[in-house]
Amino acid sequence: MNEFELIARLTKSLPTNETVVTGAGDDCAVLDLGVPEKLILFKTDAVVEGIHFTAETPPEKIGRKALARCLSDIAAMAGTPTAALVTIALPEKFDAEFIAKIYDGLNALAEKTGVAIVGGETTTNPERILISIALLGTVPRGKQILRSGAKVGDAIFVTGELGGSLAEKHLEFEPRLAEARWLAEHFSVHALMDLSDGLGGDLRHILAASKVGAEILKSAVPVSRAAKLRAKENSAAKPAFVAALTDGEDFELLFTVASKDAVKLLDAWRKKFPKLKLSCIGKIIAGEGILIRDKTSSHKFNAHGYVHFA
Amino acid sequence: MNEFELIARLTKSLPTNETVVTGAGDDCAVLDLGVPEKLILFKTDAVVEGIHFTAETPPEKIGRKALARCLSDIAAMAGTPTAALVTIALPEKFDAEFIAKIYDGLNALAEKTGVAIVGGETTTNPERILISIALLGTVPRGKQILRSGAKVGDAIFVTGELGGSLAEKHLEFEPRLAEARWLAEHFSVHALMDLSDGLGGDLRHILAASKVGAEILKSAVPVSRAAKLRAKENSAAKPAFVAALTDGEDFELLFTVASKDAVKLLDAWRKKFPKLKLSCIGKIIAGEGILIRDKTSSHKFNAHGYVHFA
Repeated sequence: MNEFELIARLTKSLPTNETVVTGAGDDCAVLDLGVPEKLILFKTDAVVEGIHFTAETPPEKIGRKALARCLSDIAAMAGTPTAALVTIALPEKFDAEFIAKIYDGLNALAEKTGVAIVGGETTTNPERILISIALLGTVPRGKQILRSGAKVGDAIFVTGELGGSLAEKHLEFEPRLAEARWLAEHFSVHALMDLSDGLGGDLRHILAASKVGAEILKSAVPVSRAAKLRAKENSAAKPAFVAALTDGEDFELLFTVASKDAVKLLDAWRKKFPKLKLSCIGKIIAGEGILIRDKTSSHKFNAHGYVHFA
Repeated sequence: MNEFELIARLTKSLPTNETVVTGAGDDCAVLDLGVPEKLILFKTDAVVEGIHFTAETPPEKIGRKALARCLSDIAAMAGTPTAALVTIALPEKFDAEFIAKIYDGLNALAEKTGVAIVGGETTTNPERILISIALLGTVPRGKQILRSGAKVGDAIFVTGELGGSLAEKHLEFEPRLAEARWLAEHFSVHALMDLSDGLGGDLRHILAASKVGAEILKSAVPVSRAAKLRAKENSAAKPAFVAALTDGEDFELLFTVASKDAVKLLDAWRKKFPKLKLSCIGKIIAGEGILIRDKTSSHKFNAHGYVHFA
């Protein structure tokens, strides 16, 4: 049983109540707690030493990343973050200076994004540091954007460039909060999520939730310089395009809009966010799964993340 | 640097915003998110294998405990729990059946207390299971009860019996949600918290926040049967009274009311909650720290938790 199978089993039948608008399975939970014009977003995310960072990662960047990952999920609902609790589990002999710097990095990003840090706890994890962030946000009622709204014919967009995040970006990415809110305010975005496990895997979540398929134009996928460089320097590395589809931790936005809105959106985006690339990478089609189209043919992109040419 | 010193350092200067009513340092954070008649309570708490439970603990009880600890903090604000996210960090080779049973225990308590489980995540912690719960609740505006309101002359109360929780109770305690709400509705409770680190340590949090001292009547402290039994059976164990003051995980309520309300409260409590003991254990005095009074003398209770008779 892998992680996804376990989650499917655990979330099959969860206790609910009248406050739940959207429960497990989207980027954030959405709750109606009675705020007249807003719904509440609720999210947790954890980073673990040896997995999401190493003992050599600068501590400020560890703290920054821990919060930024959660902020990216608030962005993925077109929301605004409000307040966070920080749980940090530590070996018994900890370096207080190191921990304080983790908080420095986290607090700096919180300040920048208007998030209050309202507490949390320290506990013991003898072998490694684990940081779990719980984050609240808000979204105007009816303006939350789920994964389940993609429609056949929609154009598929991604922000930024994909792949190779491990080289640097996973510690320094900018959660796309302003961009997502602007999208929600100005366009009818049908489905939205953030890319944490790689385009190939994450797009599948939109497709499954929306009961549709996708056709991706290979040449339109924005491949990062880092992914290209790695492929060039190391013949054993993934081809750059495969890296763009399967590397995790891009933390860019993936979304769909009706194809009639695509050109208007691209034009408006370039004026509003001239420094951040926006790419139309394909379209939503009937069926299921992902087809990758290049000049001469199209290939099914398989469930395990890598492209296998038939 | 111990855990409390680290927390003091980390929480010295935290990012804040206009939603924060009460930040770090009380049982829950209190937020004003614009719900007309309510404030929002926000809390996280983690349990770790080898510390809060063992590999031999029945998995249903692990899940139950993880949520119950957080519920006890909502009770400590006189609030009502609403929705939770569950983060579970696991070794890569996990027993899916064991994990499913952890959720069974957690979900059963959530159902019983009206809490929706709205998601969370699984992540990897190679050496041991760690479960972190993030919990939201609500409290009627102005009815939240903090640690900082104790006044000189107040009577100090605890529910239940204290000490010896490790024998059994730490896995089976009932969060005092209904009791705390009833207290807040019917009496002017000045300060309230739940007992997680032992009366001797936790009372200090009320005293420090309220800038007062306390005098505890030794004979009035309700010592649990488990603590008495352990002291009797094992001459190396703590004396039962010391256990009642220093054992952790009682998860009972500790609160103060004006002394004029004390008798009325005891009478009303016995009618409302006949099965749960309520004890008046002493009074709030000017000064700082805890005095333990017995028939013949009074002694300072020192900061490290154990009674040292001068």
